[in-house]
This record gives sequence, C-alpha cells and structure tokens, in this order.
Amino acid sequence: MALTPDATLGEAGEFGLISELVKIFEGDEHVLVGPGDDAAVLRIKHGHVVVSTDMVVEGRHFRRDWASASDVGHRAAAQNLSDINAMGGTARHLTIGLAAPADLPVAWALDFARGFAEECASVGATVVGGDLTRADQVVIAVTVLGQCTQAPVLRSGAQPGDVLALVGRQGWAAGGLAVLGRGFRSPRVLVEAYRRPETPYAAGKQAAEAGATSLIDISDGLVAEAGHLAEASGVAIDVRTDAFVIPEPLQAVGAALGADPMQFILGGGDDHALLATFPDAAVVPGGWQVVGDVREGEGVTVDGAAYDGPPGWTHF
Amino acid sequence: MALTPDATLGEAGEFGLISELVKIFEGDEHVLVGPGDDAAVLRIKHGHVVVSTDMVVEGRHFRRDWASASDVGHRAAAQNLSDINAMGGTARHLTIGLAAPADLPVAWALDFARGFAEECASVGATVVGGDLTRADQVVIAVTVLGQCTQAPVLRSGAQPGDVLALVGRQGWAAGGLAVLGRGFRSPRVLVEAYRRPETPYAAGKQAAEAGATSLIDISDGLVAEAGHLAEASGVAIDVRTDAFVIPEPLQAVGAALGADPMQFILGGGDDHALLATFPDAAVVPGGWQVVGDVREGEGVTVDGAAYDGPPGWTHF
Repeated sequence: MALTPDATLGEAGEFGLISELVKIFEGDEHVLVGPGDDAAVLRIKHGHVVVSTDMVVEGRHFRRDWASASDVGHRAAAQNLSDINAMGGTARHLTIGLAAPADLPVAWALDFARGFAEECASVGATVVGGDLTRADQVVIAVTVLGQCTQAPVLRSGAQPGDVLALVGRQGWAAGGLAVLGRGFRSPRVLVEAYRRPETPYAAGKQAAEAGATSLIDISDGLVAEAGHLAEASGVAIDVRTDAFVIPEPLQAVGAALGADPMQFILGGGDDHALLATFPDAAVVPGGWQVVGDVREGEGVTVDGAAYDGPPGWTHF
Repeated sequence: MALTPDATLGEAGEFGLISELVKIFEGDEHVLVGPGDDAAVLRIKHGHVVVSTDMVVEGRHFRRDWASASDVGHRAAAQNLSDINAMGGTARHLTIGLAAPADLPVAWALDFARGFAEECASVGATVVGGDLTRADQVVIAVTVLGQCTQAPVLRSGAQPGDVLALVGRQGWAAGGLAVLGRGFRSPRVLVEAYRRPETPYAAGKQAAEAGATSLIDISDGLVAEAGHLAEASGVAIDVRTDAFVIPEPLQAVGAALGADPMQFILGGGDDHALLATFPDAAVVPGGWQVVGDVREGEGVTVDGAAYDGPPGWTHF
C-alpha cells in the first residue's frame, strides 16, 4: 500500500506502517536477524550485556504541541541511551514499542522513527525490533542493550571522602519546560534543550576509565539522583551551589518567571547529565565539574543544609 | 512505607511500589546486576542473543473484569516468551514497563507481577529490570532476551514440498474470548485457555533440532501466521481442515453461538501454538501434527481454496 502523508495509523494498518518503519531502521554487522521475524538475533562481542527499559507517555513526558515528532524520537532514544551511559557502557541495539491511537498520523510515527534513529546513530546504535499496537494515548516503550569494555559503574560504590562531579548541561531542559508551561517559546536555547537534549554520551565510559566509584544519569533531578547514589552507597552527599555558574539563559528565565534559577539546576531533570563520584579531585576527567563531596551519614544536603526546593520528578 | 492491600499507585508512589516489585523478581546466577541501578548487567553464555518486544494494552488485549491480574501477568509473559520459542531459542531474561493510572490498586500491580514471574519461572527466565510510569490506561511493555544453542529458525526457510505442522492447543483461546464476549463464563476450560495460555515452550527447540525449515508462533491466527511464513519464504501454503479434530468444548461453543468451530481454529490467536515447516513428514517430532503442505506460488489456501473466514487479529 502506498502511504499518503496525511494517512492515519488506522488507514495505513499495522503492516503498512511497519513496512515503512523498517526502512528507517538499518541494521549493522552485529544484527544477524533484524526486524520482521519473531525476534531479532544479535552477535555479542563478549560476555556481558547491559540492558535497560524506559517508557515515554504522551501528556506526561511530552506534548505533541510542545515538541515535534522528531524531537520526541530524539528524546525517547536519548533517555534510554543515557541509562547505558550511566553504567559506563556503550549502547548497541534497541527495541521500540509504539502504542498509539488509530487517528495518529502516519507522518508523526515516521518522523518520530527518524528522530529516534538519528539519535541512536549518534552513538552507533541501531533499532533491531519493535511492536506496534493501539492505545488511547501515545505510549513509547524502549529497551536498550549495550556492552561494557570494563566493569560497569554502579550507584553503590561511593565512599566518604570521594568528590561529587557533574558533566553535561544541567537545568536547561527544566528551564525550557518552565518556559513552555507559561506559554512562551523563548529563550529558544532552553526550549531546544528540553525538546532535544545534548547528552554527554562519551562521558560515562570516560568516568569508568578514570576510576569513578559511582555513576548515575540525571533524569529525575540533581538532588534526587544524588539521593539515589547516597542511598545505594550508604553515604551522605553534600552539593555546593557555589560550584555552579548559572548560565545566562537560566538567569533570564528566573528573572522573567520570578523563580530562583538555581532551582532548575538542583531540581531539574531531562538534560541527562551524568553525576559521578571519584576518589580524588585529581582524577576527575576533563569536562567534568566538581560540585560536592561524599561524607559519612545518609541523605543529601545542599551547602550543608537540608534541601527544601522542588523534590524532582515524581512518576505518580 | 508500608503498603496497605487497597492502596493505589498514586498513594504508594513509584518507589513504594518498586521496592515491593523487586522482591517478587529474583535473579539467577547470570544476573550480575539486577533491578535498582540504571541498567541490568547479564552474563551471556555464548555469542548470540535473541531479543523480542511486545506490548499489552488494557481494553485492547485484556479487560480487568475478564481476567485476574495474575492471569494478565501470565499472558503478558507467555506472549513474549513464545516469541523466543518461535526462533527455536530459550528465554533467559525479561524487562517490564508498566504504565498505569494513579488509581490502579497496588494489589493489582503486585498480583500481575507474581503471575508474570510464575510464567517466566516455568521456563527458567527471570525479570532483570523495568520501568513504572503513569498513563490513562494500563499499558504493559515487555522485552525478552534469549539464546539459541543452534541456528535460529526463521520465517523465511519454507520450501515447496515441505509439510506444515502445528503443536499446541489452537482455537481454544479464541473460543474462550467469544464466550466472554457474549457475557458467559463457560465452558470454563476455554475461558481459562484465554486467560492463561498453555504455551508449548519446549517445542521450538525441538522443531529446530528436528530440522524445521521455518517456524512462527500463532498470535494473530493460524491462517494469518501461515501467510507470514508463505510471504517470508516466497512460497504458497495449503492448510487442510480434515487434519484437525475439533475438540469437544469448541464444538459446544460453536453450537451455542451458531458459529463454525473451525473458524476458531483457523482464525484464532492467543494460544501461542507453534506453526513450522519440515522437509518431510518423517522428521516431524512427536506432539506435532501435520496440518498442510508447502507449494510453489504465494499466499495461503484452505483445502485448496481461498480462505474467506475472519482474517485474524488486526492491530488497527
């Protein structure tokens, strides 16, 4: 069937759309069987596989009027690729489940797939399978498989005396989301940061090779994720606000919205920056910024005091 | 937080529920890192990984008043495990994404997880990760990883002269669904077959070792799946209705609903029976039943004629 640009999923049918989607997702030499059979078959170079899964829900994680289909594809891929980054691994293969209403335009699904494939290509990963079904709202489920060439870096290895370090933009996506939530479209650089994160994909492996003792990606907020590190490691973490230079666009948004721009940095997620602990400031790799330290005890403090800002993203 | 039996997801929160869920999903010696970090880490015995993903949507694939949470868990797992079976592989590890309304009872989520874990345990597979988020309806996304000890059996290897063979109950789940759709709850054996399929998990590897030339699981209907084999292999397939003995419960339902019970067998999915082609009837393994043959040409015929019954499940 030839698909017209304004066809809906209901008109195209499952197999009509799938035949277009598989053209977007090209395999690589490690994909022995790609989309189209009951399962994909992958050649794994060596013995350890890193796997993670994440869902993206319309109205909850994105709005079709706030981000293009391609942007949603980039973000859905980035959010999953980032989980492999946060283990110090390299993402290789992904599956996508797309549940959508029958009136979803085929063009949206294809643009989503193109954005998704572009983001994956930026780290050399490919889509090897998927599922397509009907639901009342768009729900995207992604699973990513990766590999580590060294031991994966877990959340649980931080030690008192370690330093806390950050890599990547932090708070920009939260600033962009706040702008969109008030009905504005600028500063454009923040709106774009929300729509399509610039994920520090090389930094996870870099941290692992530099001897990071713990590692996590910031999807729910800096303080919230520092709390996950602290809890898993059985330590306390203190974040120092004077370590951050507040970027000009966040200062502008703070002034315009009457908000403290530091709240975007401490509470914001969605940039997929990485947070790690290192045994010594001297081994923190280039591009990373020391933003705190690890102590005996439990919980997270900001400048030595309890944090009373927004707690970060909650799913329910 | 202590969870009361009648708490909702909104009351329990993401982390309240996750802490209960991870108790249900126990790892095995191949799970180096299980749920709770950014990704799971798996030890893979040898070099090929088989991966598949499938979504299950409330109101589309199940109704909470037609099946218990545990049944939905069993079915969601079975549907994915069956895809590895249909490659001749053995399922090892799974991830689950659960998107659900905030008013979903925690008890439903936990019973679902228990049913899911039980079905996985029946083949020695374990849950290694997942995601939990909010959506307007329950959407379950499962990804399964498996391995093959021999070459995977694809859809594309059928040759003219091969025989078509089936293993497992076929049409029972469709009969059960028809009964429920009319507001009845019996014959109970069919309703149970719809709620919790009896999947022939050992038969995929058995077919591969016996030299099957193509293999698929029946989730969308026997004729529809035979059509997928025919298309992928570039052959024609004829199904013979006299090969089937119609089971008594399907005869009873046909009589009660005024339907031809053969339609449940030819058009029904959801039993996750397997359909395979073998080069010769003499090599068809025990438990399999020859139900047709492979010819030159294209498409599927039933008793040599075009099939005009229900086409099987369509997703849009």
